[in-house]
Amino acid sequence: VNDAGRLSIDETVERIKALVGPKGWVSDPNDIEPYLVEPRGLFHGATRLVVRPASTADVAAIVTLCAAAKLPIVPQGGNTGLVGAQVPPENGNNIVVSLQRMNKIRAVDPLNYTMTVEAGVILADIQKAAEEADRLFPLSLGAEGSCRIGGNLSTNAGGVGVLRYGNTRDLALGLEVVLPDGRIWDGLRALRKDNTGYDLKQLFIGGEGTLGIITAAVLKLFPRPREIETAMIALANVDDVMEIFARARAASGDQLTAFELIPRFGIEMTTQHLHGISDPIAAAYPWYVLLEISSSEASGASRAKLENFLAAQIEAGLVVDGVIAASAAQAANIWRIRDGMTEAQGYEGGSIKHDVSVPVSRVAEFIRTAMAAVEARLPGIRPCPFGHVGDGNIHFNLSQPKGADPKGVDKAAYLARWGEFNDIVHGIVAALGGSISAEHGIGRLKRDEITHYKSPLELDLMRKIKHALDPDGIMNPGKVIAAE
Amino acid sequence: VNDAGRLSIDETVERIKALVGPKGWVSDPNDIEPYLVEPRGLFHGATRLVVRPASTADVAAIVTLCAAAKLPIVPQGGNTGLVGAQVPPENGNNIVVSLQRMNKIRAVDPLNYTMTVEAGVILADIQKAAEEADRLFPLSLGAEGSCRIGGNLSTNAGGVGVLRYGNTRDLALGLEVVLPDGRIWDGLRALRKDNTGYDLKQLFIGGEGTLGIITAAVLKLFPRPREIETAMIALANVDDVMEIFARARAASGDQLTAFELIPRFGIEMTTQHLHGISDPIAAAYPWYVLLEISSSEASGASRAKLENFLAAQIEAGLVVDGVIAASAAQAANIWRIRDGMTEAQGYEGGSIKHDVSVPVSRVAEFIRTAMAAVEARLPGIRPCPFGHVGDGNIHFNLSQPKGADPKGVDKAAYLARWGEFNDIVHGIVAALGGSISAEHGIGRLKRDEITHYKSPLELDLMRKIKHALDPDGIMNPGKVIAAE
Repeated sequence: VNDAGRLSIDETVERIKALVGPKGWVSDPNDIEPYLVEPRGLFHGATRLVVRPASTADVAAIVTLCAAAKLPIVPQGGNTGLVGAQVPPENGNNIVVSLQRMNKIRAVDPLNYTMTVEAGVILADIQKAAEEADRLFPLSLGAEGSCRIGGNLSTNAGGVGVLRYGNTRDLALGLEVVLPDGRIWDGLRALRKDNTGYDLKQLFIGGEGTLGIITAAVLKLFPRPREIETAMIALANVDDVMEIFARARAASGDQLTAFELIPRFGIEMTTQHLHGISDPIAAAYPWYVLLEISSSEASGASRAKLENFLAAQIEAGLVVDGVIAASAAQAANIWRIRDGMTEAQGYEGGSIKHDVSVPVSRVAEFIRTAMAAVEARLPGIRPCPFGHVGDGNIHFNLSQPKGADPKGVDKAAYLARWGEFNDIVHGIVAALGGSISAEHGIGRLKRDEITHYKSPLELDLMRKIKHALDPDGIMNPGKVIAAE
Repeated sequence: VNDAGRLSIDETVERIKALVGPKGWVSDPNDIEPYLVEPRGLFHGATRLVVRPASTADVAAIVTLCAAAKLPIVPQGGNTGLVGAQVPPENGNNIVVSLQRMNKIRAVDPLNYTMTVEAGVILADIQKAAEEADRLFPLSLGAEGSCRIGGNLSTNAGGVGVLRYGNTRDLALGLEVVLPDGRIWDGLRALRKDNTGYDLKQLFIGGEGTLGIITAAVLKLFPRPREIETAMIALANVDDVMEIFARARAASGDQLTAFELIPRFGIEMTTQHLHGISDPIAAAYPWYVLLEISSSEASGASRAKLENFLAAQIEAGLVVDGVIAASAAQAANIWRIRDGMTEAQGYEGGSIKHDVSVPVSRVAEFIRTAMAAVEARLPGIRPCPFGHVGDGNIHFNLSQPKGADPKGVDKAAYLARWGEFNDIVHGIVAALGGSISAEHGIGRLKRDEITHYKSPLELDLMRKIKHALDPDGIMNPGKVIAAE
């Protein structure tokens, strides 16, 4: 205890350990390691303590102790984030609060189409619990077997369901949050309509743990799909893709659940490098779209819609070829092309990645402009623009030129130019009114870069909000926005 | 100019007049009157100046002058709000900034399914512009011919499209806002995905003008409906209503666009008092639901869905009778019952109103409990619970007992008990985890009442946000939250 009657950092750490008991903390270097590295290995932090509370009350007690000692906290869910928000800094001065033990589904209310879950529930477990109640929780992404809903909420995760069901933000009706001073905000409302003041939950969703620790949430559920129809269509010209999308929305009765762009390069890579994938269309075309329609009503209408749509667009000359999956296996083959692109691209050498969005109407313009710009900078570079073009979100990934050594010195030299190509691509994105982080967030990776793309006024507003809720800056400091 | 070199209030007002020119301000008492009274006559304010800027730059210049002189501002759109947020206080110390002249549609982008509009555009004009681009802007409410989108955004308006398309919050992709210090925040993004920091627009949506003045917005559009089918169904028991709703969501492929509860009292009032309305079902039942399915694909599927659903629920015993509108005239008749209830209730004497919501699964429990409670307090009272039960939102309106004088002294004595019945009903709402203002907001009318239903912590958070963005409290002071 120091002169001011405050606990020292060491004493605070001991109090926290005593509070949660032996199952509630980790400090052995080997056991701590998995909490320190993020999936792509971009950051490797350090910490003296990982604490694993089992209840909201414990989280609140921990944060209260940390607030008194001004001991900074890094909240962590499944540690699958791609921008380093969940990794402690290298100086070891932050403790990690892992929500993994808070993994209870508190309630499922099928008639209200809602579920109340703790922050540490794994996304796939939420999907399963919804299905058991004959409902759908539509958030779906690559890491769903290990990511946790608190992290999904904190990063406003996207994924493949956004087109029909929205981002994670759109799927939350209420939150429970431990504030930076240790108080618990019970905002666990299960209401579709509530206009009683500022919608505070919106600050914590997408806040990347910098304004408080989300401990529980009320999530929206939907009717479970009873029929799903999948098609792959080929386009002569990428400029047609948005007109096709607009027509598909109307023709499907707005029941499109996927509209994913795939370039020819994507088909070639996946069929060559991955096992058991075949090209579903005999001839080769420059651009493809994976298109899915689903419905909670099993009437065969989805298939009819897809057939009519495809016939009309071939007739109109917008679609040059296409196939509707005749079986679950054929649908799975099409989806494996889409989902396998990142893995397949690994076999082609270094890949410089971008997670960007533009207005949906400017997707083709973005692709054309950005491809020309990167090809001008490095002849032979192989762009692979793919993904959720129905949301305006393109994963604009660039493989190193063919023929260069895909592993050794050429790869390293190529990847050393990551920032250079980011600048080119993000400049085009900004000129088109787009976003340099569509899904993944800011964290540490893009914290300094966004200062070039956001107005000083917006950064100032963000800092004001941060300061209002966390005046001592103990909640995930150095993420999203730098300290003043 | 005072000692500190600051303009006086009088000088500031003169500067503002000079800035906007003779067309840009109103100060004659007769001309000012329409800006001072709200639709139900609950508040009658005073002001020395109504200023009507024509551009965002003018709004910014006005707010900059007001900020320097600490002259408070009441932003106003179409002046249709029901909680007094848009009315200046009686002391005359605030000026009114009306956005009515900022009524330009800046851009329509059908391929992006978006539209960029200024705050003063009338809602019906936005709907029309969307239709001309073969799109739908789904926000729809009683005042749509005179309310303006800036007000709709500031109150997060609900209306009849919420079930399918969400509240106004869900329909906005970006905002332009003049902050309380006069700076302009250009957040006019047209993106479906953008995870680059705190989602600041969420603060101004539903902020009722207390954090800044919304001057423009990017709105989401949808495919235009090509077929709309309407039915009226009768239930034996209000307890069945939510099970029927859950089944209707799934059976319609989640294409329900209305699910509105109507009590027998509503049918009797509207057919008796309003012109040309007939009871669509021959026999009398205690409860009815207006049910609408629509689709952007004209295939006849909506009618088939509705027929199949109705047959299945009659077979299952949940629905006791029903009719599907066979013509546009029949559909209009059903909708006139729903929309005519407030007007018809006026002929039945005093009506004490509530705009509440509960979780959708608890709607029947709420109705039963609240009806019993008000009938116990005043035997003969005639509850008319109706409205958007698909959103959990019930307009729980109470007509005075039959036989009492519907106009004179009995009505006045009945309406004098408004607060007493609010307390009863809101207490039940709170116990069910509901909201005492589902659609209309807080404004002045419910500002003090919410302090009984929100935690001190939540009110404290709201105050912190208010203070962070508007430290001098010049933006619509005294609305939503009281000053500290």
